[in-house]
Amino acid sequence: MCGIFGIYNHPEASNLVYLGLYALQHRGQESAGIVSSDNRQLHHYRQMGLVSEVFTKDILKRLPGKSAIGHVRYSTAGSSELKNAQPFVVDYYKGSLAIAHNGNLTNAFLIKGELESKGSIFQSNMDTEVIVHLIARSKEKSTLERTVHALKQLEGAYSLVIMTENELIVARDPFGFRPLVLGQLKDAPVVASETCAFDLIGAKFVREIEPGEILLINGEGIKSFKPFPHKQPHQCVFEFIYFARPDSFIFKRNVYEVRKSFGAQLAREAPVKVDMVVPIPDSGFPATLGFSAESKIPLELGMIRNHYIGRTFIEPEQRIRHFGVKIKLNPVKELLKDKKIVTVDDSIVRATTSRKINKMFRNAGAKEVHVRISSPPITHPCFFGIDTPKRSELIASYHKVKEIQKFINASSLHYLSLEGLKKCVREDAESFCYACFTGDYPTPFQMDLD
Amino acid sequence: MCGIFGIYNHPEASNLVYLGLYALQHRGQESAGIVSSDNRQLHHYRQMGLVSEVFTKDILKRLPGKSAIGHVRYSTAGSSELKNAQPFVVDYYKGSLAIAHNGNLTNAFLIKGELESKGSIFQSNMDTEVIVHLIARSKEKSTLERTVHALKQLEGAYSLVIMTENELIVARDPFGFRPLVLGQLKDAPVVASETCAFDLIGAKFVREIEPGEILLINGEGIKSFKPFPHKQPHQCVFEFIYFARPDSFIFKRNVYEVRKSFGAQLAREAPVKVDMVVPIPDSGFPATLGFSAESKIPLELGMIRNHYIGRTFIEPEQRIRHFGVKIKLNPVKELLKDKKIVTVDDSIVRATTSRKINKMFRNAGAKEVHVRISSPPITHPCFFGIDTPKRSELIASYHKVKEIQKFINASSLHYLSLEGLKKCVREDAESFCYACFTGDYPTPFQMDLD
Amino acid sequence: MCGIFGIYNHPEASNLVYLGLYALQHRGQESAGIVSSDNRQLHHYRQMGLVSEVFTKDILKRLPGKSAIGHVRYSTAGSSELKNAQPFVVDYYKGSLAIAHNGNLTNAFLIKGELESKGSIFQSNMDTEVIVHLIARSKEKSTLERTVHALKQLEGAYSLVIMTENELIVARDPFGFRPLVLGQLKDAPVVASETCAFDLIGAKFVREIEPGEILLINGEGIKSFKPFPHKQPHQCVFEFIYFARPDSFIFKRNVYEVRKSFGAQLAREAPVKVDMVVPIPDSGFPATLGFSAESKIPLELGMIRNHYIGRTFIEPEQRIRHFGVKIKLNPVKELLKDKKIVTVDDSIVRATTSRKINKMFRNAGAKEVHVRISSPPITHPCFFGIDTPKRSELIASYHKVKEIQKFINASSLHYLSLEGLKKCVREDAESFCYACFTGDYPTPFQMDLD
Amino acid sequence: MCGIFGIYNHPEASNLVYLGLYALQHRGQESAGIVSSDNRQLHHYRQMGLVSEVFTKDILKRLPGKSAIGHVRYSTAGSSELKNAQPFVVDYYKGSLAIAHNGNLTNAFLIKGELESKGSIFQSNMDTEVIVHLIARSKEKSTLERTVHALKQLEGAYSLVIMTENELIVARDPFGFRPLVLGQLKDAPVVASETCAFDLIGAKFVREIEPGEILLINGEGIKSFKPFPHKQPHQCVFEFIYFARPDSFIFKRNVYEVRKSFGAQLAREAPVKVDMVVPIPDSGFPATLGFSAESKIPLELGMIRNHYIGRTFIEPEQRIRHFGVKIKLNPVKELLKDKKIVTVDDSIVRATTSRKINKMFRNAGAKEVHVRISSPPITHPCFFGIDTPKRSELIASYHKVKEIQKFINASSLHYLSLEGLKKCVREDAESFCYACFTGDYPTPFQMDLD
Repeated sequence: MCGIFGIYNHPEASNLVYLGLYALQHRGQESAGIVSSDNRQLHHYRQMGLVSEVFTKDILKRLPGKSAIGHVRYSTAGSSELKNAQPFVVDYYKGSLAIAHNGNLTNAFLIKGELESKGSIFQSNMDTEVIVHLIARSKEKSTLERTVHALKQLEGAYSLVIMTENELIVARDPFGFRPLVLGQLKDAPVVASETCAFDLIGAKFVREIEPGEILLINGEGIKSFKPFPHKQPHQCVFEFIYFARPDSFIFKRNVYEVRKSFGAQLAREAPVKVDMVVPIPDSGFPATLGFSAESKIPLELGMIRNHYIGRTFIEPEQRIRHFGVKIKLNPVKELLKDKKIVTVDDSIVRATTSRKINKMFRNAGAKEVHVRISSPPITHPCFFGIDTPKRSELIASYHKVKEIQKFINASSLHYLSLEGLKKCVREDAESFCYACFTGDYPTPFQMDLD
Repeated sequence: MCGIFGIYNHPEASNLVYLGLYALQHRGQESAGIVSSDNRQLHHYRQMGLVSEVFTKDILKRLPGKSAIGHVRYSTAGSSELKNAQPFVVDYYKGSLAIAHNGNLTNAFLIKGELESKGSIFQSNMDTEVIVHLIARSKEKSTLERTVHALKQLEGAYSLVIMTENELIVARDPFGFRPLVLGQLKDAPVVASETCAFDLIGAKFVREIEPGEILLINGEGIKSFKPFPHKQPHQCVFEFIYFARPDSFIFKRNVYEVRKSFGAQLAREAPVKVDMVVPIPDSGFPATLGFSAESKIPLELGMIRNHYIGRTFIEPEQRIRHFGVKIKLNPVKELLKDKKIVTVDDSIVRATTSRKINKMFRNAGAKEVHVRISSPPITHPCFFGIDTPKRSELIASYHKVKEIQKFINASSLHYLSLEGLKKCVREDAESFCYACFTGDYPTPFQMDLD
Repeated sequence: MCGIFGIYNHPEASNLVYLGLYALQHRGQESAGIVSSDNRQLHHYRQMGLVSEVFTKDILKRLPGKSAIGHVRYSTAGSSELKNAQPFVVDYYKGSLAIAHNGNLTNAFLIKGELESKGSIFQSNMDTEVIVHLIARSKEKSTLERTVHALKQLEGAYSLVIMTENELIVARDPFGFRPLVLGQLKDAPVVASETCAFDLIGAKFVREIEPGEILLINGEGIKSFKPFPHKQPHQCVFEFIYFARPDSFIFKRNVYEVRKSFGAQLAREAPVKVDMVVPIPDSGFPATLGFSAESKIPLELGMIRNHYIGRTFIEPEQRIRHFGVKIKLNPVKELLKDKKIVTVDDSIVRATTSRKINKMFRNAGAKEVHVRISSPPITHPCFFGIDTPKRSELIASYHKVKEIQKFINASSLHYLSLEGLKKCVREDAESFCYACFTGDYPTPFQMDLD
Repeated sequence: MCGIFGIYNHPEASNLVYLGLYALQHRGQESAGIVSSDNRQLHHYRQMGLVSEVFTKDILKRLPGKSAIGHVRYSTAGSSELKNAQPFVVDYYKGSLAIAHNGNLTNAFLIKGELESKGSIFQSNMDTEVIVHLIARSKEKSTLERTVHALKQLEGAYSLVIMTENELIVARDPFGFRPLVLGQLKDAPVVASETCAFDLIGAKFVREIEPGEILLINGEGIKSFKPFPHKQPHQCVFEFIYFARPDSFIFKRNVYEVRKSFGAQLAREAPVKVDMVVPIPDSGFPATLGFSAESKIPLELGMIRNHYIGRTFIEPEQRIRHFGVKIKLNPVKELLKDKKIVTVDDSIVRATTSRKINKMFRNAGAKEVHVRISSPPITHPCFFGIDTPKRSELIASYHKVKEIQKFINASSLHYLSLEGLKKCVREDAESFCYACFTGDYPTPFQMDLD
């Protein structure tokens, strides 16, 4: 998964991109990069690491100009190396070009092969590099036309921002898999993956970029284009379930409220008689609140998070049981002793963490530990940008709910039903992608699902 | 404030101290240090920074031996410099000595003057160095006797652990200001500021060290001494209100439960008619839960915390309003719009943060913002280890509640009453120190209260 | 200028490249990089900095495989940025390719324009990237043939080594501007810019790669090809004068001996009656020895070098005169007082350093300071890889010797004559490039000589 | 060995100490420190590492004030740890005190025991800490008197500078073991271990501090005191042989000239018929020049030094023979082939390096390798500050010259005679310490000579 941000026509462009990326850090912690334009040339800096580690005042000073774009990355396509950090910057016959891309192109591999056979060389193994090659090879006249020409050849998910020396081009694929929002900071248009990036810099949220929409931002203002045939949108429901920040507004809804409604629906679908509802810090919190409110079972902070998790860690040689989880979480024994509890988490992927957490609850004295999951079982991998593992590692692919319950040692286990999920998403239910729960992918493609 | 940890007779002593300090990181983020003993000599390492930054595998390897002590520090006495990092290590006529100290000695300055006049030289400006000088100058026979001799000359707060080549001496001052707990990991006795440090390493909690108690831990086991005249304990109630980790058990109670009871009591004392209770992440959470449960007003996560707060930060030159708070917190506008809310926080010191947060709530659309504080107004500085500012900076010192309410722009403001606070602390109420609310310091001393 | 190194079929390939680059560090201190092949794929690492700073044991472990190439760089073409560090690595339709290049292509800019017009994109501003594009676009069958096809389109200087998953291709341009030598370490062929790299790893020197020669090194051994029309070699005489290490053997001679013969010839051409010959540490030493031996004037270490020159440096605000030179060199006043001296240096570029050094000699008490330069005046820039400044900054371009003598405040100044230089280079005199002294460039090209 | 520097009354005091230490870096590369005084208090910074690594502009800014002292250290007494870095800074009953010390106190251990028995605590294991304790315990009135009182109790070597808030005290022990010089930079008196530190900052050399002399530098100028009974000076002749920088003037002579005279004398004492004299870079150079000039045998740079020796180094697993030396030095094979050579080095300690170098010469083709050493055999350890190993590791302690010759595989081996050495030191011969060659230590003491 990745986060992107762009701004046009602001004297502090690269500083503001820095802040925007900071607010989008949850979308990718592997690498960060910013490219700025001073109208004559592009300046860029990328490194592995968090935004606050990668950039310093001095580095930002070396990124002058009034427009800039940025990217935070968690690898979904391309391995974790500096060469795969974005924005990607190149020179071609029309000048320079930088691109920041969130999403996954499903036919990138095929096109890369074709391009190589025509003599193209590739320096990264990102699908994003394919977009740039297609733009460079296009014979269309303007950068906008070349970009459209390139995107028409591509399938899959992309929310992206392209910068040349003097314009920004912003695009969201026709299915609208990933979010992309437009804002305004005084005279400067801004785009970002989520609205939380606008809040930090004090920009006003204007509207979402629509699926299949392309914006051209330059000295003459913002122009909107819809060059693709219309398609039924397939917005990623997992952004609601887990990925986006709860304070963001995307896909026409506030994430926190949607997430809370999942918990409430879950309480209706799978009630349980227990002493307390315990949230798993921090991702499961909004759904837990919804569950507690609907079920009238009191919420208790039975599991405490350590605020100071450092990067590297030294484990003693005599292995401490469940160490990886223990370093982050600690149960409140006095509270849990002899109690029946239910925990609400957003999803189960491999189930190993869930197993460890339940063990900790039981060791702390809990008599019953019921588990509720605020999304349906994940049975299929995502090819559009969410970093789920391959099918064979998804526990729900090959195991029934009862088996998973046994594996994680839960007193009971219930998932939110697909119908329940759709109900919460409401009138827009049909404009979302549920492929990770159903296997009904919106585009056909050749990939090893195993 | 500081955190201390010690272990005796474990083959991985320094690794376990590392973990213990990790769990105590909330008690001090300025510097960290570990001293180990291989029975023949002491090995030590101290640096400015977080535990996870200061120590590496290689550094821990250079701290061999079966006993070790450690310290995390947030300066209360002594400026913020490497020379003030602890544990403090010295050679004297009986061998080597290391000390890790949490608390503040109120007569250190006077004794330092006396010692210097006798030819002592000081290398730090920590009060802790005074303890070591007194031990070194004592003519008593054993380290234990010399330590008792030294401590009898000192006034103020100390929970401390002293290590020589082959023994640990653990002491808590007669007032018992700061917490100190004893645990057991297989054959190894452990001591720590809070029980959360035991949980991480899998040690069993045995009991609290009592006010005025001294433990001698060596090859012959653990011996307990009570060499001081009995005093009425004055345990720091602020550990309950704010400082200790909610999953810890100190002063005979689980911190989370006490903290929650403050919120419930506050709901009874100062009810309010609003649409929702909004916690201020993360410190105010347990009290907020108590308030919500007692008042039946639903809890909503109206303020979201950014998980990725880095160390250094670059602010744009065109100053963004309330930037320091904004980088950490962001309100959920869709939730707050046109709503009446109440927030519960643990305390108000200078009131500047509170003012900014309320402004953010109002900008996000909240119609009324009521504030409840789960402790009484802080009117006096602490001289026993809590890092409150001097009196002139404590807003409640010179301002009435109404004035503070106006300054922070709250629709209403109520503090927990002292009686309410004591009620929650229950039967032990008289064994706590409330000086920061009352000015009734348990020991007389000459200090500039301004 | 740059240094290159390659090895094929050795179990410690990347460790040995590391050492080879270490011995070639004098050829480039700006960036360093290594690419290894484990037969299936290429692994690479590049960073700004010295070899000993860029690589650690851990990084070298991440470069597995039995063949590897490396590069140290001092920018001559392309600005000083990470993206310009080499080896350059790409994927194209036939697999992966890495290249390490020493030299300068004089028609790179034209070809880059053509390639871009056909849709190629460029990520660096190195001329080296052009080579890779030409190889990728070639329709020839083998990598060797594609490489030849590419090199035939290029003009200028190149000593280079290309690595694919399972072979090395080594090439030196028909003019043979830059050195390139072949060695053998047990079963592993090695190539390097200079023989000093072989000495460190204990490899045997086999022979020089000839101008216009291409080697194909793979599992079947080493094959030699001469695909280009024969040209009169133009080996860079400046490698002898200044650039190469004195312990290296290149262009059929030992560098130290050639350099010493320049000094001896200079003593014959421009004798002087003085008390002592003083070398300027460290580059001028061999020529100074030759001058002293021929003239019978005793050599004295009148100028001492500080061994500990760090990277960054803090200058006091009240500027110390000639500070930049003073931090490196200090005269021996007692020795120089009232003496007549002659110094021998290898070349004068801008003359500012020479001016400062002479001032220091005079301040130390020297009565006369004669200067002898062991090469002719540099009047023209180099377009083949030596980092001379543009013509307008070369003092000898626009100033007579007498004027330079006055500028540097020398008692007398003499340069080695071109004839003298050629005499020292002996029978091979016609196979060298003297363009920086004459302006007779071996290839015509369009470039701004100013 | 160590280097010290001090300056009084200059607006850029700490910057100038930085530069002074830079010029004295050859006297200690382990740690560096500076303490400044702004007249009210002392500010200090110390770290492990080279001067250019330890200090940055920002750190120097945090060392304000018009007087400052500094220290570079190579441990002779006390282990290599940060706590042993100097200057040492303490508070005592009269205020603050910083001290920078070069030399070794021979009775420090005894006094430390006495002080500890009176209750003193020690934080380092430097002998220097003893000086400070003695000053702090002295009942004399002024800092000067207390310092004299302290120094009178101490035996051994010390050149030192003490700084209080508003004065400098400079002292050299009665034997004058280590050098100490006085200079002047405009209105600011400066002191340093060697004059090369004055040259860099542009200070004028005034005179040497005499053995047994103490200077008091404060607002009233410089006052000189001679409080100790006169003793026959014992200046360290090893400073001439190896330690001091050749451009320095100490012990009334220029080091380069003395060193060269050792080589000339050696040529007279032990002539040899060979083709060339080869210096071992860099320490043996001046003596080699003297040998060559006297013997008329031509000097040749047969061994070339790599200029870029980094800090850490990765050795290949298949060990390369003599790797440690090879990484630094490489012979010029073409020059040495079939030649008879003599090398001149300053001293032999363990003889292992010499053995490796001779092996390299022979591998490069030299037919005979004669060795001349420009000092007598080192048979006894130094207790006054030179870091020679203990007696059992000194090869000349237990082996005859013939045996050493065989061990290092030399065609012949001759040392400079003690008489020859004294002759070169001339009229002052009796004012030097030759204990490392004779075992005649100037002070009796109890130490394990083994």
